Amino acid sequence: MSISNNAKAILREFTREVWSEGDIEASDKYIAPKYTIHHDPGDPWEGKELELAGYEERVKTLRAAFPDQHFEIQGLFADGDAVLMIWFCSATQKGDIPGFPATGKQIEMSGATVYYFAGSRLTGHWQITDRLGVYRQLR
Amino acid sequence: MSISNNAKAILREFTREVWSEGDIEASDKYIAPKYTIHHDPGDPWEGKELELAGYEERVKTLRAAFPDQHFEIQGLFADGDAVLMIWFCSATQKGDIPGFPATGKQIEMSGATVYYFAGSRLTGHWQITDRLGVYRQLR
Repeated sequence: MSISNNAKAILREFTREVWSEGDIEASDKYIAPKYTIHHDPGDPWEGKELELAGYEERVKTLRAAFPDQHFEIQGLFADGDAVLMIWFCSATQKGDIPGFPATGKQIEMSGATVYYFAGSRLTGHWQITDRLGVYRQLR
Repeated sequence: MSISNNAKAILREFTREVWSEGDIEASDKYIAPKYTIHHDPGDPWEGKELELAGYEERVKTLRAAFPDQHFEIQGLFADGDAVLMIWFCSATQKGDIPGFPATGKQIEMSGATVYYFAGSRLTGHWQITDRLGVYRQLR
């Protein structure tokens, strides 16, 4: 298996285990000692360098608001040490987020994320998500 | 030059000529006979299959609202027949857009676009842009 295909397989597992199934402790298998959120407009962690505990806290906070969140990967593209993932996420808002106390509404979100690898570990991401679409669904 | 590097170079030229410099007729050099907007939430052309005239109309409409729009390419990643571009755009709102009559405000937008190629021609895109960020700047 090429390095690129291996990175894609790792990203599939990571997305399923950590983000869709909520096995937060599995982050340990994927996250590098420093994880940098290079760009993620609207995300409270944008610009931060996280250690494992900080990354786990981010997953925990986002999954507390949307506990049943499920990711469908639409495409994976690898080039050098980067893998781009385009995705859809469906979720029910069970907890509060800024501007929206828990609505109980089911939403769909889409996004595009560039993940950066060092070996088999993720060192950070550059991401855009369709936040306006989510806000319109929660309104 | 590899196919991937060639596709990246084409995308740089296309973005500069057509979108930043507004040479709409140059679209003819880049756009395939059918151009499909697979995903672009919030974009009025989302889901459409455009011929060259339709594509040019889209550029014209978007540039009429933001005539000085300028794109900075943050990264290009190629895999198979796809090239991902992550980008920043700065622009002044000189024309009306839905919900916002011309404000005269200067805005910054970021986005991630997967462009699909057939040979040296673009056949479509899958895109997410930070529309919520733009709305917040125009409000």
